[in-house]
Order: sequence, then C-alpha cells, then structure tokens
Amino acid sequence: MIKASIVSVGNEILSGQTVDTNAAHLSAVLLLIGVPVVSSYAVRDEIDAIVRGLNLASADADVILTTGGLGPTDDDLTRQALAKFLGVELELQDERDTRFAGRDRQMPERNKIQAYIPAGAKALANIGTAPGIMAESEGKLFFALPGVPMEMKRMFEESVRPELERFAGGQAVVVKKLKCFGAGESTIAELLGTMMQRGRNPLINCTVSSGIITLHIIATADDKEKAEQMAKKDEKLLQSTLGELIYGVRDQSLAEVVGEKLAQRGKTIAVAESCTGGLLAKLLTDNPGSSKYFTYGWITYSNEAKTSELGVPAELIQEYGAVSEQVARAMAIGARKKAGTDYAISITGIAGPAGGTEQKPVGLVYISVDSENGCDTKRCFFYHGRQFIRLRAAQTVLNILRLKLNI
Amino acid sequence: MIKASIVSVGNEILSGQTVDTNAAHLSAVLLLIGVPVVSSYAVRDEIDAIVRGLNLASADADVILTTGGLGPTDDDLTRQALAKFLGVELELQDERDTRFAGRDRQMPERNKIQAYIPAGAKALANIGTAPGIMAESEGKLFFALPGVPMEMKRMFEESVRPELERFAGGQAVVVKKLKCFGAGESTIAELLGTMMQRGRNPLINCTVSSGIITLHIIATADDKEKAEQMAKKDEKLLQSTLGELIYGVRDQSLAEVVGEKLAQRGKTIAVAESCTGGLLAKLLTDNPGSSKYFTYGWITYSNEAKTSELGVPAELIQEYGAVSEQVARAMAIGARKKAGTDYAISITGIAGPAGGTEQKPVGLVYISVDSENGCDTKRCFFYHGRQFIRLRAAQTVLNILRLKLNI
Repeated sequence: MIKASIVSVGNEILSGQTVDTNAAHLSAVLLLIGVPVVSSYAVRDEIDAIVRGLNLASADADVILTTGGLGPTDDDLTRQALAKFLGVELELQDERDTRFAGRDRQMPERNKIQAYIPAGAKALANIGTAPGIMAESEGKLFFALPGVPMEMKRMFEESVRPELERFAGGQAVVVKKLKCFGAGESTIAELLGTMMQRGRNPLINCTVSSGIITLHIIATADDKEKAEQMAKKDEKLLQSTLGELIYGVRDQSLAEVVGEKLAQRGKTIAVAESCTGGLLAKLLTDNPGSSKYFTYGWITYSNEAKTSELGVPAELIQEYGAVSEQVARAMAIGARKKAGTDYAISITGIAGPAGGTEQKPVGLVYISVDSENGCDTKRCFFYHGRQFIRLRAAQTVLNILRLKLNI
Repeated sequence: MIKASIVSVGNEILSGQTVDTNAAHLSAVLLLIGVPVVSSYAVRDEIDAIVRGLNLASADADVILTTGGLGPTDDDLTRQALAKFLGVELELQDERDTRFAGRDRQMPERNKIQAYIPAGAKALANIGTAPGIMAESEGKLFFALPGVPMEMKRMFEESVRPELERFAGGQAVVVKKLKCFGAGESTIAELLGTMMQRGRNPLINCTVSSGIITLHIIATADDKEKAEQMAKKDEKLLQSTLGELIYGVRDQSLAEVVGEKLAQRGKTIAVAESCTGGLLAKLLTDNPGSSKYFTYGWITYSNEAKTSELGVPAELIQEYGAVSEQVARAMAIGARKKAGTDYAISITGIAGPAGGTEQKPVGLVYISVDSENGCDTKRCFFYHGRQFIRLRAAQTVLNILRLKLNI
C-alpha cells in the first residue's frame, strides 16, 4: 500500500496562530483515495528545518506533500528547501507555466521568485500567485502545495489527485461514520470488543468530542464495490451491537437528527429553558430549515418569567424551588400549551459555579418533555463546570426526544 | 531560551478525522510563557511510531509534550511508548493519584490500565479518567497529556504551566491581551503599523477567532517588574491607538463585558431573537451570575410567536415582513415592556441558507436596542453562511449595547 507523509511549513503553525487544517484536509482526502497518511511534521520557515522534514517524511512514505512557504516573501523557503533536498538548482520556469503569465499581466518584481522551481520539477497551476511544484525522486513523489487552504484544496483536486490515482492505482477505501450518544468511550469499546482491534479490515476507529462519540468504519479493498460491501456489513454489525446508542451518521448532530425526525412527521416543538439560557434553542436552530418545526422558545431565567410567560404557579416555585421536578414539568406543559406545538421540552437546573446547595448542588438538572402522551420528567446530574453542564443537559433532552420520536 | 516540541498521537489525526487543535492551542500558550514550539509531529497509535516521535522531539527541544493515546482502549499506547522511550517499566500508581479513586467509585476493569505510568514518572490529575504523565530524563521534561481538548487544556493550566514556569526560570515574560471587535485584522494591522514588527520587544501578536481579534503583548525582560512595565506601556499605547475597538482584556467575551457593565450599573436586560434562535441569550447566560441582569428571553421564530409573545402587530409583519426595521423595533420594544427591564435587544434576519430573496438576501439582519432613551435599530449585512451570520449578528448587537453602556 502506498503511504503519504505531510510536511506543514510555517512559523504561524508552530506559534499557534494558525490551526493546521491543511494537514487534516489532506489526510482525509488521501485516506479516501487509498493513500493513508502515516506521519505529519510541522516545521519552521527555515531551509534546514524544511529539508529535515522532507528527509523524515520520505523515510516514512512514498508520497510527500508540503503545504506553505511558496509565497513571495523572504520567509517563504519551501522551493529552496525542496531544491536542496533534491540536490538540484532552482530554475526559472517557462512563463507559460506560471499563473501570472496565464493572467496576461506583468509579474510584479516581488513575485518573480515564485516562477523558480527545482530543476526537473513540474509547476502546478494555482488560482493564487504561487505555482505548486511536483517532483519525482528515487521512486517517490513530492508535491509542494500552497498554504492558503482554498488554493491548496483546489491544487490538490486539479493536479495532485489525478497523479496520485495513477500512482496508487487499484485500491479503494470506503469510510462510514456512526455517531453515538448516551455511553462513554470505554463502554462502547467494551461493547465492540475485538471489532476495534488494530490490524482489522475494516478498521473501526473511535473519537470523542463534546460528549458525542464518532465511530469510523474504514474499509480497504481492491475495488470500490467490495470496500463498500465490507463497510456496509460492519455498519450493520455496529448498529445491531450498539442499537439506540447510535443516533446518526456522517457529521450529524443530535439536534439535526431530532429536527429531521420532527420535519418528517410534520411535528412542531417549543422549548422552555432556564439554566441552559437559550443553548437548547440555539442547537435546534443551528439546523437550516428549523423554522419548519421550531416555532417558540422561552428563556425564563427569572422566577417571574416562569410564572408570567409559562404559567408556572408562583406557589409551586415557592414550595419546590425553581430547580425541581414540579417546575420542570410545569414549564414544559406551559410551553406546549402556549405555543400549541406537538412537543415542548424544558430544562431547569443549577449550572453553577454559584447557586448550589447541599440539597441541590451544582450540576443538578431537571428535564421534561411534554406531548399529547403526557409529560415525562427526568432528574439528571452533570459534572465538569457550567458550560459542560449546560451542553450535556441540552444534549440529554435532545436524546430523550430522539428516542421518543423513534417509537 | 527553552524550546518545546509537540508529538500528537492518534490515527484520527492522520486520517484527517480530527483537526489537531491541541497542537495549535499548546503552541499558542507555550509561546506566551516564553517557551516557543520549534517542531510538531503527528504519529500513529503505534508504540514504535510514538517512540520515534519522542526521539525526534527530544532532539529538537527541552520540553516535549504529547497529546492523545492515554485512554483505556487497546489503541491508547502513549504510556507504553513513553516507558519504552525512557527505558523503564510501567508501574501501578498509588490509587489516590487517579481520578477514579478521588471519585470514590470502583475503577472499571477497562480503566485500570490508566493507573499505570512509567516508573519514576508523576501522574497528573485529570478531570477525565486518564491521568497525565510528567517525567524528567536527561535534563528534558516530558508531559503526556490527554487528547480530549477540554481535559488537555485543564491539565496544562493546572499541572504543566506551573512546572514550565519553574523550569524556564530566570527570564520573565509578561503577556497582556486586548480583545477587539468592530474592525478586521488588516485594519488593525494598519492602525498599529510598525508596532507589529517581528523582532520587536514587546512582541505584538494578532490572532482572529470567530470575528474577535486578540492582540497579545508579549514583553520579555530579566525580571518580572521590568517586563510588566514594558507590557503596561504598550497596553496604553494600543488603547490610545485603537480606542473603542478594544472591548476587553484577557479572555473576556463581548457578552462578558456587557454583563459586567450591566451588573455594575444594576441594569437588567431581556432579549427577543428570531434568526439567532437563542444564540444571543446563550452568549449572555454563558456568564456565571448572569441571573443578576438577564431575566427574560424570547425566541420568536414564527410570526405568530412575534405577535403573541411580543405584541408585534400582525399587520406590521404583513406590511414590512418579519425581517424589517419595523419588526425589529417592535420586538425590542415589546420585549422590554413585557419583561420590565432597562434594556431589550432584538434580532431578526435571514441566516440562510434558504429564505433569501433579491430584496432581502441571506445575511440581511436588523438589530434593535430599546431603553428608556428610545429605540435604535440598525440594518446589517453579514456573509459566510448560517452559523457565521448568526454569530456575527449576536456579537454586533452586544457590541452596540457595550458602546451604549460606556456613555
């Protein structure tokens, strides 16, 4: 199997001013054409550092891609470094190969350096001013791509992908993603057992972000159809093993899945939030087209608001407190009644950092879902600070609604 | 000067499924404590690959940080690799050092591996289940941090930063941050002119994230007091140059500054949102203690909700459309009246991707601020897609309110 390695060139990456999304993008697209990236190096804008990066990368892989350092300024040194690595001089390219010539514009003095590439290499067209470079040496392929993500992506599609498909030939990779909520990473790993073993094909990978677990199924085969079949088979296997823990596919969010289900069934929803303060509504309205099912939302942060807007009796708040099963229930029922929706969900809790007591500590949250089938209320407890408590409360209620909508 | 190098561990990085924001975050915070990152390596979840990364990194730098590979699953191999690199065995730590013991919960079998760290190393507390690791070898410091960004950041602040400040010793670095909103990066660079030159001390760095520009003043001197003075001098200079473009310091958000000003003056606020769908309220209630000034919020996503909840006349919506100056104004006035607050802010617009027309294209947003001094409405236009339009609309109205609260 052909492997790739990436060298990201630029002080702005090592100073943290720029997140290296280029490396992630290249890794993802390369994997999907069957050329896995096995290592990635970020180096400074210095010739020796770049040469060292090229040496390391070419020890790891058959295809080496650099990004950045092709601009016109003094700290753009990738072309010099690539020439040094290849042991050749820089040569002025035929101007027809460079973008400025293509534009029929005079090349500014500053940009002239961009017309030089290592002897024997090929210039790659760019929508920006700096051409990319392709070189072959000792059976390995080198691509120097610009650092501007838009230019880099375009150059990859137009010039790199066709070369690599030729170079790699005869291998297909299919990737499927399953999104899970409601169990931790280790629980899911335990449920999957040997499926997550390393050398397995398809490979099952697991990542966690903001409480959402993403399972990747990466199937490699001689042809696309076979890889697709392998991935599909594992997808079914994971679905039967994890059941309702899987809420979606690809990059779907919980709110997106809930929104889709509401739209499919022609149902509407209203929300009444206290401690989440708009976050739940925000998640639902992140979805394009959410006006189809989302109509009303109340952020009843004060007790008065709960009473005046949702009709929660002041005595109820007095007796049980704003953070209570009774009030969560009254909020959801009040919201559904006022909005005239099919569903209403409410959240009231103590997100902290202040406001907790021994009886009602920070992290205590009541969530309630009201529908024509009645009102269900759940007492939850979350950790890890205000933002996490708020997010997890919103995710949890969305998940409850998702399960209700499955029935 | 002490240098750092980063080893990012994880197939999910090399497969492009995860963008390596950890490396960027660490690079940025390390730079700010005077420990520049000189190289960064991404390696696969394989013991030999991690060991090789550790070798490369320790050839480059004095402080080596790894992220990822500390979880409980079979492909979490950083602790084994670090032990191999250090030439020691893994040892079971005193359980009091591990998070599960602290929680007074039985450690699940699967998580037991997380209690092992290389002999002679120190476990670092984690809000997640996997402790981090600190080791010293041949005068170099090694930190193994978790891959989950929230856990990693917290562990860096609590356990790594104090160690590095001790390790770096002898040189004082003072960093001040100024947060700006209301102008682009290039406008600010132009206003600052030569102040942003590379070799300057204090160094003025500029980063942009979600429309917020952060200026870092990084002053380096022999002692803390001198560095502090240098930084303060530049802070004043920037304040006089940028004026009201600067809204805050440190990591303050716009909503935080607005909240502080409201609390200081004992003023209250209500919000009425259409296209931002709860985002504005969410930003305000992200602030701990926001119940002091935030009381009511309405998400009037449907026209009916605007009329029933905020008293926006149906005829007004009919005549001018829900996205209009008139409706924005009526929403703010209605919200303030109903909530009985000092201020009310409203947002109505077309966040897209659908719903735009020639007269009212996607990105058109009206924002309104009502107070006892009357109601101001502004027509805005934002680009770059639904989420950006929503965020920028919320930020813009918060910024208008901030400027009003300055008077």
